[in-house]
Order: sequence, then structure tokens, then C-alpha cells
Amino acid sequence: MNIKEKIANKALPIEKALIKYLKIREPTKLYEAMAHIPLAGGKRLRPVMALLTCEMVGGESKKAVPFATSLEVIHNFTLVHDDVMDDDDLRHGVPACHTIYGLPTAILAGDSLFSYAFEMITDCEINDNIKSDLVKHIAYTVRRIAEGQQMDINFEEEETVNTDEYLEMIRLKTSILFGSAAYGGVLIGGGNKKQANELRQMAISVGLGFQIWDDYLDAMAPAEILGKPSGSDIRQGKRTLLVIDALNRASENERKELINILDNSDNSDDEIKRAVEIMETSGALKHCHKQAMGYLDGAKETLEKYPMNKARNTLEELLKYMVTRGH
Amino acid sequence: MNIKEKIANKALPIEKALIKYLKIREPTKLYEAMAHIPLAGGKRLRPVMALLTCEMVGGESKKAVPFATSLEVIHNFTLVHDDVMDDDDLRHGVPACHTIYGLPTAILAGDSLFSYAFEMITDCEINDNIKSDLVKHIAYTVRRIAEGQQMDINFEEEETVNTDEYLEMIRLKTSILFGSAAYGGVLIGGGNKKQANELRQMAISVGLGFQIWDDYLDAMAPAEILGKPSGSDIRQGKRTLLVIDALNRASENERKELINILDNSDNSDDEIKRAVEIMETSGALKHCHKQAMGYLDGAKETLEKYPMNKARNTLEELLKYMVTRGH
Repeated sequence: MNIKEKIANKALPIEKALIKYLKIREPTKLYEAMAHIPLAGGKRLRPVMALLTCEMVGGESKKAVPFATSLEVIHNFTLVHDDVMDDDDLRHGVPACHTIYGLPTAILAGDSLFSYAFEMITDCEINDNIKSDLVKHIAYTVRRIAEGQQMDINFEEEETVNTDEYLEMIRLKTSILFGSAAYGGVLIGGGNKKQANELRQMAISVGLGFQIWDDYLDAMAPAEILGKPSGSDIRQGKRTLLVIDALNRASENERKELINILDNSDNSDDEIKRAVEIMETSGALKHCHKQAMGYLDGAKETLEKYPMNKARNTLEELLKYMVTRGH
Repeated sequence: MNIKEKIANKALPIEKALIKYLKIREPTKLYEAMAHIPLAGGKRLRPVMALLTCEMVGGESKKAVPFATSLEVIHNFTLVHDDVMDDDDLRHGVPACHTIYGLPTAILAGDSLFSYAFEMITDCEINDNIKSDLVKHIAYTVRRIAEGQQMDINFEEEETVNTDEYLEMIRLKTSILFGSAAYGGVLIGGGNKKQANELRQMAISVGLGFQIWDDYLDAMAPAEILGKPSGSDIRQGKRTLLVIDALNRASENERKELINILDNSDNSDDEIKRAVEIMETSGALKHCHKQAMGYLDGAKETLEKYPMNKARNTLEELLKYMVTRGH
């Protein structure tokens, strides 16, 4: 089995739990809207990371399934609301929730998914003190995710964004929930708080690499792998790490050329190619790639402190997949 | 002290907690948006109900403050999102959150308030098993509130709504959170689960009366009391219990006349007066008033099972205020 198959296999109890929780009830429009994006697919990386960290520290991952499912539901709730905020019509190649169900029901569907996540956490057969810890942790984390999304919104109005600000934004918006996967997996699996925090930091680092790699793929990977046209971030003029880094490294002329392409809302394919070329010649692509790999190396060092077992092995493959997929 | 003063007095620790939790941090736009509606005022009926039920069963209401604050924050999160969904520009006489901060930040502010509510629940100094119970209960309740809001959205597209459907909608959208106030107050105060459920049902009933009374006031009370023009529900063509009941009771001609006024989006003051007249002559106003009082009578019977103390006395006054205020 390759790692993609291993992830899909590990995710089976999550798929089952999602189907069970998200069954259609009255009022059907709300429950259909809630189920739409979560059941449209997804790699389920966050829940799988929770199950693997749970097993790695010696726990039974069965006990972590409702918590792991809550992570996927939270991830999907943020996608549903983000699509409303950004007015994006598509998500993972299917119509966004609000495209089908309208804005009011999409907002409600997000809210309900989020509340459902807390019902799931309390469905775990674990000690009440761990439950309380996880509830507080997840609630805090979602508030931080919202901070990251607000930073992203603010960036759109700013002329320049520096690397540190960008990394802090993706740390909150994307990586921190990977951290929660490891944190909860470890605690449910019987690990101690120190281990939970250590593996949380490891997962947050690789989550940063994951997002940097996502930006990289958006510029470099063919449309078949992306499931959307290549270079869409450039078309939208998004300030990704790749762009920020290229703007820092490029010559004055190339910098101006890249800004022109980013600020143009109707780019030709040749212009997209030219933007990628500037990213390449400036050294930005190479640097981002290296940075993503650096996060992986740090994670491997952390994992070496834990006893070697099947779960640790698969977790290492998962982390590697996060920062090398589609390459 | 009259009951309004007693409520305001009892709400002081809640105001203090709201100010503490909602202090402005980075990114400031998000935290300003979060604080805007909760700190714009409000009667704080839900938290005060939680504190009073806690004391009535013999508990220290100090322990219930973070939970009680979470109820107010949840109530406000639903207001912020409802205003986005209904595209309402004003709330409690101040600009709605999205009017000032824009749609994306208003959605985020609602999400963050909601997650914050769970942080507050876990801040309570109570046993972890009660914490878990409250988290599950509140998460379930917010999912039901969303169901109620979806029913309300659905009603706008329906020709007729019957009384039972309307009552089920307001039970979910409005009353159920009053139920949670009593439920949590009792459990934190040391009451048992049976008492918590009994007082929850009582609070839900009075919550129904509260909403019916709100509809009644909207038609009958002068603008000074409402803080908005009288008859705004009629202007908007809303199917309140009063309207549904009047349509059921009125003569064929008056029914047609009332529907015309409701369907007209630009009513004169005389037309509003005429609509209220039809509600009056049909007996709908009287019936709604009676129904709200009936819920109060039921609640009083429940309260009589509990030992008489200062908190029970104030709670009884609070419940009465909920269904008679502004009269």
C-alpha cells in the first residue's frame, strides 16, 4: 500500500462516522447543506493524524474516532464559511455550500457543523477531565483560526505583507488544527500533556510546510493533480509565501513585472507561465521547497523520541506526504 | 427595587465578565466586531436566569458566572449571524455588526464568539462531569437553534404557516436557550438532573410566552418602549403567532385585508393601525396575551415545588417580567 492508500484505509472509520452524524433530518435543507461539503470527499488528513498519534503513544484509535471526526467537521465548517466570505463558487471541484443552498443556510450549516463538533468530542469514551481539556483546547483553537482568517482578510487591503506576517497567518488559519489533531490523539491515547504539546508543535510545523507546499503546487502542478486550473493563486493576485519571497528576491524589473501580473485580474496563460518563471529564476520556488522540507526534518527528529511502531512509521509517511504530495 | 433594577443588579458580574473576555486584541478588527453587539447592552435575561436557578437550588451563583456569560455570548453570536442572514442593518438601535465591519468579519466574529462560549463553560470551577454535560447540552442546543432559524427561513417561502409549526420554530429559535440557562444553573448549583430537566422545561415554556409577548409588543407598544417603530413585523409581512391567529379567526373580508397589508412592502401608518385593529377585533391579541399568561401560570406551579427563598422569588418576578414587560 502506498501512503495515499494507507491514509484512505485509516480514514474508513471517519467516513463511517461522518455518514452517521450527518444523516439527513428535518429541516432537510439545513442537514443537506451541512452534509454537502464534508461528504463531497477530502483526504481526512487531520483525523488520520489524530488516530495515528493516538496509536503511536500506545492508545486504541477506536476511542479517538469521535474526536478525530470533530476535527474534520471543524475543518469543513471553516471551508463553508470561508467560501461565503470569499464568495468562492467552487470547493474541491463541487459547488460551494452557499452556491447550492444560499447564503443564510450556508452560514447556518457552518454554525451547526461547528456545534456538532463539540457533541462529537463529548461522545468520546474518555475521562471527563480529558474531555474538558479537549473542549477548551478546540474552542481556543477555532478562535485562533478565526484570527488567522481575519489576518488573511486584512492582507487583501495591504500593499505589502512580510514573510513573518504571512507565516503567522497560515500558522493560525491552517496549521494550528493539525496541532490539535496531534494534541488530542496523544491525550486520548494515554500520552501525557508534555508529549501532547510536543507533538502538537511538531504537527503545527508540518502544517506550515503543508500550506507552503500547497502554494507551491498551485503554481507548479498540472491541472489534473490540482483539480483546478494551475496558477489560480497568481490569477487571483494572492500574496502567498512564494509570491512574497519572489518579490523580495527578484530584480527591480522582474518585481514590477510580477506585480503587474498579480494586479491584473484577467491573465493569459503565458502571463501565468511568466510569473512562475520569475518565481523560479528568483530562487523563490527553491527556497519554499527547502523550507517545507526543513519543517519535515524537524518533525522527524521529534518522532525519533518515540518508540518505533507501525503507527509512528505511517505517521512519518503521512507527514512526508503532506509536504511532498503531487511532486 | 423593581424587577428591571433587580435584573440589572444581578447582571453586574455578567457585564464584568463580558468586558474581561471581550477585551480588544490583535487582530483588532475581529475583536472589535466580536465586542460590538454584546457590549451594546441587552437585558441579560438568560444569564440572570442561570444565576437565579443556581441560587434557588442552594448553589453559589459566583460559580455559574462563566457559564451564564457563555449563554449571553451564544445569544449574541446568533444575533450577529441572523442579522447577516436577514440583511438587517440595525440591532438594538445600533448598527448591526456587518453594517460596520462588513460581511466576512461579521461571520468570523459570530464564529469566534461561539467558540469563546465553550472556553467560558470550561472556565467554570465545577466538576468535569458537569462540564462535559453542559458542553454536550449547549452544543446540541445551538444545533437546535440553527434548526429553528432554518424553519424561519423556510416559512418566508411558504404561503401559510400553522400555529404548531410557528410554536415549534420559536421553541427552537428563542425558547430553548432559556431552557439551557435553567438547566445549567441547576446543575452548577448542585441540583440533580431531574430538577435540571424540569426547570429547563419550565424556562422553555416561559421562553415561548416571551416570544409571543415580543410579537404582541411589536404590534401594540409605542415606539419609545420598543426602540424601533411600532408595527415593524406587520411592515415586514412577518407571520408571527399574532398574524397566524388573526388570519385563522378573522372574517373572510378582514383576512383578505390583512394579507394585503402584510404583502404590501410600503405600508402607511393608517394601514398598520388597521392591521392591529383586525388583530384586536378577531380576538387574536386577546388570545396571544392569554397564551403567554398560561405559560407563566404553568411555570409558577413548577416553582412551588422548590423551597421558598430570595432567588425563587426574584426568578418568579423575572418570569413574570418576560411575559408582561412594557405593558
